[in-house]
Amino acid sequence: MKFTANDIARLIEGKLDGDPNVVVNKVSKIDEGEPGSVSFLANPKYTPFIYDSEASIVIVNTDFVPEKSVKPTLIKVKDAYSAFARLLEVYNNIKHSKTGISEKADIAHSASIGKDVFVGPFVSIGENTTIGENTKIYANTVIGDNVNIGDNCLVFSNVNIYSDCIIGSKVTLHAGIVIGSDGFGFAPQQDSNFKKVAQIGNVIIEDQVEIGANTTIDRATMGSTIIRKGVKLDNLIQVAHNAEIDENTVIAALTGISGSAKVGKNCMIGGQVGIVGHLQIADEVRIAAQAGVSSSIKEKGFTALGSPAIEYNNYKKSYVHFKNLQNLVDRIKVLEKKLEERGQ
Amino acid sequence: MKFTANDIARLIEGKLDGDPNVVVNKVSKIDEGEPGSVSFLANPKYTPFIYDSEASIVIVNTDFVPEKSVKPTLIKVKDAYSAFARLLEVYNNIKHSKTGISEKADIAHSASIGKDVFVGPFVSIGENTTIGENTKIYANTVIGDNVNIGDNCLVFSNVNIYSDCIIGSKVTLHAGIVIGSDGFGFAPQQDSNFKKVAQIGNVIIEDQVEIGANTTIDRATMGSTIIRKGVKLDNLIQVAHNAEIDENTVIAALTGISGSAKVGKNCMIGGQVGIVGHLQIADEVRIAAQAGVSSSIKEKGFTALGSPAIEYNNYKKSYVHFKNLQNLVDRIKVLEKKLEERGQ
Amino acid sequence: MKFTANDIARLIEGKLDGDPNVVVNKVSKIDEGEPGSVSFLANPKYTPFIYDSEASIVIVNTDFVPEKSVKPTLIKVKDAYSAFARLLEVYNNIKHSKTGISEKADIAHSASIGKDVFVGPFVSIGENTTIGENTKIYANTVIGDNVNIGDNCLVFSNVNIYSDCIIGSKVTLHAGIVIGSDGFGFAPQQDSNFKKVAQIGNVIIEDQVEIGANTTIDRATMGSTIIRKGVKLDNLIQVAHNAEIDENTVIAALTGISGSAKVGKNCMIGGQVGIVGHLQIADEVRIAAQAGVSSSIKEKGFTALGSPAIEYNNYKKSYVHFKNLQNLVDRIKVLEKKLEERGQ
Repeated sequence: MKFTANDIARLIEGKLDGDPNVVVNKVSKIDEGEPGSVSFLANPKYTPFIYDSEASIVIVNTDFVPEKSVKPTLIKVKDAYSAFARLLEVYNNIKHSKTGISEKADIAHSASIGKDVFVGPFVSIGENTTIGENTKIYANTVIGDNVNIGDNCLVFSNVNIYSDCIIGSKVTLHAGIVIGSDGFGFAPQQDSNFKKVAQIGNVIIEDQVEIGANTTIDRATMGSTIIRKGVKLDNLIQVAHNAEIDENTVIAALTGISGSAKVGKNCMIGGQVGIVGHLQIADEVRIAAQAGVSSSIKEKGFTALGSPAIEYNNYKKSYVHFKNLQNLVDRIKVLEKKLEERGQ
Repeated sequence: MKFTANDIARLIEGKLDGDPNVVVNKVSKIDEGEPGSVSFLANPKYTPFIYDSEASIVIVNTDFVPEKSVKPTLIKVKDAYSAFARLLEVYNNIKHSKTGISEKADIAHSASIGKDVFVGPFVSIGENTTIGENTKIYANTVIGDNVNIGDNCLVFSNVNIYSDCIIGSKVTLHAGIVIGSDGFGFAPQQDSNFKKVAQIGNVIIEDQVEIGANTTIDRATMGSTIIRKGVKLDNLIQVAHNAEIDENTVIAALTGISGSAKVGKNCMIGGQVGIVGHLQIADEVRIAAQAGVSSSIKEKGFTALGSPAIEYNNYKKSYVHFKNLQNLVDRIKVLEKKLEERGQ
Repeated sequence: MKFTANDIARLIEGKLDGDPNVVVNKVSKIDEGEPGSVSFLANPKYTPFIYDSEASIVIVNTDFVPEKSVKPTLIKVKDAYSAFARLLEVYNNIKHSKTGISEKADIAHSASIGKDVFVGPFVSIGENTTIGENTKIYANTVIGDNVNIGDNCLVFSNVNIYSDCIIGSKVTLHAGIVIGSDGFGFAPQQDSNFKKVAQIGNVIIEDQVEIGANTTIDRATMGSTIIRKGVKLDNLIQVAHNAEIDENTVIAALTGISGSAKVGKNCMIGGQVGIVGHLQIADEVRIAAQAGVSSSIKEKGFTALGSPAIEYNNYKKSYVHFKNLQNLVDRIKVLEKKLEERGQ
């Protein structure tokens, strides 16, 4: 994709200062700007870089007045950062604007495919499954029977959606995700075998959710595992059967949410966190990376750290002493010796 | 799939009380029962819900006597919970009863495929590979050369089984699993490069094993990485080269078993646990979530917690003091001050 | 693949002692040797096993003189271990010597495919993508637009490489890997929603890198996420956007490297380690399994342990005291009591 300075100025409603016909096909950081790229200058700290920048176009704030000559074409806007972000979005939308259904896909006759959908090669779509308008499904993704996917979704390659799951609109699913695999439910038998408990629920993913690569979300034993509107999950996360994650909660990579745990709204959960099954986590809770939450957190806005997790500052303070435990032991020894010398 | 009350009563050998022709096509919890669903009542705590339940059929114990009128058709059995579990199993079996080989699969001429097998579209099966009777292989799964898969297995979509691996019977492999990838073996060189050590062993998975989505099991350097009969592995677990997990051991998500570690029978291992290479873990050991096991556990039935892992109650007790370290430090300060005041 | 003792002796430049025509088709450990296999004896500790070994061929050091009769054909070389390793390598190379492009692959007309490449069935290769000579791409792998892959790479099945990524030569990518998925970047909005920050950078993987199964590497927001020459990543690792891992660093499974973190050269990082975003880790640093690194490590060769991570021996020493905290508390109680008795 190539754009002229003129194209971009029109798109972000900016004022041109320099060659309107210069062409770019990529973006760059102001301090790494190379010919053929568009960059931006928002933070005054980076101003010195603009005088040496090789970028062909730089988006700047309207109040930017160069102190010396500048090579790139400038585009002046009210808020350079927002304008640049808008530009990236447009770029991204163009990138995912393919439509059409590959002849190499395998689509059940009973499936219903919306308008302007893209279906890549080697995609399987099962019986009675519905794909909404303008949704894009990349190569080798497998969608089971009776699945419902909304409008304007991006489903990348090699995603697996088991039967009966429901995906909202504007959902992004990155490569390798598994949605709706069986929950880890086994009933112990007397001979120390385990008998599988059939997992016949599903997964519901609401609108505007984004899920990272190779994350797994198990179907409910009965009922639904639910990821509410606006939730963002990073890569390699495990969400177990019947868990529920409420609106706009954000979870970093390699975290595990155990079965039937309920996580509140607007929580921020770090990487490699573990949450034990059946717990309740209140809204706006923050859980630091690697914490192991082993009891419910009922206080809104609570911040947790440690394994088992306790209040953040409490852990931090105790950890300072932990690092100095040798010193503490030495002091106790001195005290013991002194008392002994005094003849106890 | 639709069933009448009559169908279900016959299947679970129950006695009908109500309309035998009512039709259901899903299951529900008694407290969420909706029309067209079958539910069950086993725990007396839930009895009140049956009087308002919209479920079309409820399976109850023979000794259940309604105190007031009940809308759903009742099916009376000796043990409502077991009968319901049996019903779910039947439902699940019907769901995975497809047979036939997709014309869109790629199967080597030298491969041998058993009776009543299902092979989905875009599946690859390599040279000299054998697939047992009644095994189901879903879309986009890749099976290498010289692989042996037993009877009655369920292999979900996008599974990868490298060459030479051996899978028993009644094994379930969820989507995205990788079996037989190279072990992480590199020999340090003098120039601080690493030279790959060829990994030419395989993976053996015995009967009745179930493995969760996106779990990875590396092939042995030489010999075999072995998952014994009845083992259950959750999602996103790493099992390294030459590890061995003995019968009926259960491991939760995001746990890592390092190279050449041997885990005993009937162990229960929590999520995000790490086990260091070459260790031996005795039978019936329990390891709590997030523990880091850095030395062998030789005592049968031992329970471990912490990183590095120690005896469970020892860790718990020490952790109580850890949380109060500030208090301990304060008490030592008081003691020091008192002694000083007394003129040391 | 079958080899005679003669074939192997020629290959590893060894001297035959026994039947030159005996045939092997697999390898074995000296203590598990079975007919039809080739084994080796390097460690004198294992010498007793050679007298009972059923292996058909054993590679031994030239100075090995049997004390009694030996059944296998011996091949004598200067260094039995190295010779055996060389043999494994040859075996492995033969295993991955397929060439040709499957008719069932989907390759864009604008893609450029080098000499002696293998492309398996159901592989997708995007527009303007380049695949170097002698690279092998196994079934169901998806490679986006404008990707560049070098020579002599091994890309296993179901790998996902998003558009614009660059892969060097002699790179091995195991099954299920995701390279170039969007970084986890969301800008908080006033209504507690998050707005996606478009991720328009890429991933660069340099020569001789090996990456384990189901590992994920996110593309940079802008610029590149970089994995330098010779790095070895194990399975199920997360590398976030704009992270950079320098030459010959080795990282074990289930570790997470957060956004914009820079890891030095020749580091050794254990499993389940977490590194917080934007940190710098010096060269030759060692980080023990499950450590949580929450501040930059500037000292070359530093060894870290704990969460948050501190110096290894400091943690170890403090942890000894942690395990005995009950004892410490008891000693403080005794001191308090003694002082009280003496009349404070």
